[in-house]
Amino acid sequence: MSTETSIQRISAFRDLMAKAGIKATIIPRTDPHLSEYISDHWHIVRYLTGFTGSAGTLVITDRGAYLWVDSRYFLQGETQTRGAGIELMKEGLPGVPTINQFLCDTLAKGDTVGINGMLMSADDTAKIRSLLDRHGINLNVNFDPIDNVWADRPALPDGPVFVHEVKYAGESAADKLATLRKDTAEAGASAYFTSALDEIAWILNIRSTDVPYNPVATSFLYVGPDEARLFIDSAKLTPEVEKYLTETGVQTASYGSALEFLASLPQSVTVLLSGSRASGAVASALEGHCVFGDSPLALPKAIKNAIQMQGIRDAHVRDGVYMVRSIKEIKEIVESGRPLTEIGVADILERNRRTDSLFFDLSFDSICGFGANGAIVHYSATPESDTALATDNLLLIDSGANYLDATTDITRTIALGTPTADMRHDFTLVMKGHIAIATSVFPEGTRGHQLDAMARMPLWKEGKSYLHGTGHGVGHFLNVHEGPQSIRLNDTMAPLMPGMLTSNEPGVYLEGRYGIRCENLVLTVPYETTEFGRFFAFETVTMCPFDRALFDTSIMSHEEIEWINNYHRTVYDRLAPSLTEDERAWLADATAPLEK
Amino acid sequence: MSTETSIQRISAFRDLMAKAGIKATIIPRTDPHLSEYISDHWHIVRYLTGFTGSAGTLVITDRGAYLWVDSRYFLQGETQTRGAGIELMKEGLPGVPTINQFLCDTLAKGDTVGINGMLMSADDTAKIRSLLDRHGINLNVNFDPIDNVWADRPALPDGPVFVHEVKYAGESAADKLATLRKDTAEAGASAYFTSALDEIAWILNIRSTDVPYNPVATSFLYVGPDEARLFIDSAKLTPEVEKYLTETGVQTASYGSALEFLASLPQSVTVLLSGSRASGAVASALEGHCVFGDSPLALPKAIKNAIQMQGIRDAHVRDGVYMVRSIKEIKEIVESGRPLTEIGVADILERNRRTDSLFFDLSFDSICGFGANGAIVHYSATPESDTALATDNLLLIDSGANYLDATTDITRTIALGTPTADMRHDFTLVMKGHIAIATSVFPEGTRGHQLDAMARMPLWKEGKSYLHGTGHGVGHFLNVHEGPQSIRLNDTMAPLMPGMLTSNEPGVYLEGRYGIRCENLVLTVPYETTEFGRFFAFETVTMCPFDRALFDTSIMSHEEIEWINNYHRTVYDRLAPSLTEDERAWLADATAPLEK
Repeated sequence: MSTETSIQRISAFRDLMAKAGIKATIIPRTDPHLSEYISDHWHIVRYLTGFTGSAGTLVITDRGAYLWVDSRYFLQGETQTRGAGIELMKEGLPGVPTINQFLCDTLAKGDTVGINGMLMSADDTAKIRSLLDRHGINLNVNFDPIDNVWADRPALPDGPVFVHEVKYAGESAADKLATLRKDTAEAGASAYFTSALDEIAWILNIRSTDVPYNPVATSFLYVGPDEARLFIDSAKLTPEVEKYLTETGVQTASYGSALEFLASLPQSVTVLLSGSRASGAVASALEGHCVFGDSPLALPKAIKNAIQMQGIRDAHVRDGVYMVRSIKEIKEIVESGRPLTEIGVADILERNRRTDSLFFDLSFDSICGFGANGAIVHYSATPESDTALATDNLLLIDSGANYLDATTDITRTIALGTPTADMRHDFTLVMKGHIAIATSVFPEGTRGHQLDAMARMPLWKEGKSYLHGTGHGVGHFLNVHEGPQSIRLNDTMAPLMPGMLTSNEPGVYLEGRYGIRCENLVLTVPYETTEFGRFFAFETVTMCPFDRALFDTSIMSHEEIEWINNYHRTVYDRLAPSLTEDERAWLADATAPLEK
Repeated sequence: MSTETSIQRISAFRDLMAKAGIKATIIPRTDPHLSEYISDHWHIVRYLTGFTGSAGTLVITDRGAYLWVDSRYFLQGETQTRGAGIELMKEGLPGVPTINQFLCDTLAKGDTVGINGMLMSADDTAKIRSLLDRHGINLNVNFDPIDNVWADRPALPDGPVFVHEVKYAGESAADKLATLRKDTAEAGASAYFTSALDEIAWILNIRSTDVPYNPVATSFLYVGPDEARLFIDSAKLTPEVEKYLTETGVQTASYGSALEFLASLPQSVTVLLSGSRASGAVASALEGHCVFGDSPLALPKAIKNAIQMQGIRDAHVRDGVYMVRSIKEIKEIVESGRPLTEIGVADILERNRRTDSLFFDLSFDSICGFGANGAIVHYSATPESDTALATDNLLLIDSGANYLDATTDITRTIALGTPTADMRHDFTLVMKGHIAIATSVFPEGTRGHQLDAMARMPLWKEGKSYLHGTGHGVGHFLNVHEGPQSIRLNDTMAPLMPGMLTSNEPGVYLEGRYGIRCENLVLTVPYETTEFGRFFAFETVTMCPFDRALFDTSIMSHEEIEWINNYHRTVYDRLAPSLTEDERAWLADATAPLEK
């Protein structure tokens, strides 16, 4: 996009602000479901600025335009908006105000801030409202003029909905709805309303293609004691799905009628909302009769049932076969001197995964970073950046798929040619952290931020670190990022419970040189019960060898070497039956025991 | 105390409640300074119930008496109050309400709860007031009839105040007051008021003998932009101390006049208070012109200056000499078959420490637990429980002293006779956790709860644990427990910063068998600065060997064994010059290298 285009678009938007008496507007990069991945219809920030990052908030005032981005996007934000008259606000750097501070400092008493109340959470809306109030600044939550600027705005997605069969989901939608009604009542409410697309997909066992990588259906869901109402574009529903929903006790209504419906509910109906996942507009429609609390679906969705867990184990064996097949192919191409680029690597992975009979889509845009590109944490190769692989550096591959029976997410760091001693040393430090998490045992109630330092300590002891979390929750044939648990430095309230699927992905990134990340998914499983209580452990479900060429066993303990050797033996045993003879021989070498 | 006495006292108290129209009262075990250790004058709970634990809250209603205690005191609470008509409320057990819940459930609209507003923090008072309000229950915060029940109530303590010299404190009171004034202004207030006795002792460089083990002076302190006013009983002040205070710019006023003074301040004076360390009565006296925030003294007090750090290192060498001398003596008595009891052990320790020219007092009541008594975490031997030592079990000794140049706190677990394989195994697990903390390196901003699991993981892997924190802050010639940092499972907001002194004390307790705890104090120190930021580490300052007989090197890594051997070498090198020849020979054996 040319900077000229961006300047024109923002200027057109500003004219509409002036007409509406709005001094400043906030445009978060999200949708009315507060999603992380969004459909083209909601890419307003990208349309106005050209910035394509996965997080960022645009503020336009009568005099300027400002884009707040986090450290992942400092560089990309600058590159993509250069010359467009947009000031990049680098979150967390000294002297950079928060958006709320900025507005209070910039605006005068009596000014009005306009936002689309659908695009900001109820919590954040309440926070900004109270702050602006104190400064005598007005907040208009119904300011949404983008259609008048964006002539060829893509329509809302209308992918067909299909049913996620119970043989994969493990529990019927009717049973999940019954549990939700019980939990809602226990939370002191009579109904639950959710805008969260993964929650709706999970509880109704439905999926669609509305959002890239997230197999969700754009909709809202209201569940009262005697009715459940799905607000969805009827064009998305086949007669079979309509029948399924009716049999499940779910009525449908138009997507656009959700707020109106909420506003029409009698005050006697107390509706439970998640303050962080429902928008301010939803909360306003229920003013006076909503209660805020944790989503009653967060835990049931995160805690996988026995059928889901079996699906997770099965899918990871198949995914491991595609990984091994791809890595073998990549190494052979590079070693033979044939050309291959980062995008070529992603294509090989996708081609192999697509052969799976339960394959649905990738679970996120593959990250394949060679050498210095591997040190850019959220690197995604573009035709412009696409780099040819060569020997004697590292290739970082973070990829995954949505299969009908599970979502996968795996990172391997691969040596092309001969790795240096530094590479082996750093890789081994990362693996020591990975193994510390993989072998953790912890009492009931333990939260991820209590374990996080175990993964970082080997790096910390050498003055190194990584800025991302060690682990995120993973959905089941659903979003690759899901809550409520995580393993990170920041406090997280949700304990790690049996059935939760979480990533274990320490890394280290040396600017201009190489990046290393080692990621498996782990299921929390019961370990033992003693006089000291219940203890849980992690079961690693990802099945793919770590590159033997990268271990420096001189800095590994006997137990660490043994863990790798046991893991590699399991990988071989589970994958071998599905491999060709050639591949089996390759895997036998790749999983041969490490020695001190 | 006989149960009959307790019944009579509570009944007399209840008569006064009835006369004042009070349906229920809450009596926390604390003083107007919300202290952990309190003088006899404030032992109201003990007077009324006979319960001597260090934490507990008594609630008396028109119909019953209830004592809330935490898990440390379930057993002791029952034993000490049996037959006195007091219902023990075991905090945290299923079905046990909080005090606030209990009052709301028990009382009727229009009833009145009476408390002494000096004995409850501003935060807790606000919380209970808002809850009672919602239930239409009144709160009277001026209900304090204990003098009319407790005829021979001990007077307020009147120990003499003395000055803690700058050569030990490292910074003059005048300088600390100047910093406080700056920090108070930065917090948006014009003055700071504190009830916290350790804060007052620290900032004015004064000490006294008012509270057992805590060398503090009962007082309140107000610091405005141009004046500092110490509310203290003038009988405690010698002419020299009066002169010192005057020269430091501190006026004095009577202890009892603090609230009146606060109430007389003009509304234009904004006073900063800590909501958790100032009482509700203090907050009310300042209603409308106080702001709540973290205490501006918490960090400066916790971060020791260079002179304090040197004092800490020096005192720990001397304390190590007394520990070695005592342990040698204890082992020799037991091995020779001469009688020795737990109280006898405490006496030996105290006798040796008292020989120090800078010794002031013990820093807490020594915990000496033999065999099964060692498994009672807060065990303190009484004449009734005092147990004779014997061979073939463990002795746990947790003790410390206040020297003019530092406060010490050390726990050693000692084998008497031949330890079993279980004892050695469990001891080694605890030491693995201890070493994991001792060798931690962590980036700036790391908080204790992020490291805590490192200390527990070796135990967790075998289904074992301990219920206390891994580490608490330690004062400087002051309270042995101080904030704001800690190393524990629960979230703690204060990061570990260079200069902080913290304990490292994992343990394990096997009911009816033995207890193990291994405690050193560690200073947070700078480690290195890299492209990834500033990193800190711990410097172990406690100097005393761990019992070599208790290590099972077969489950220790090479690095763990090396850490012990290096530590023992340092202990020997530092203590040897101050030991007798006999003692030196004993220590040489006790610190001989461990081998795999």
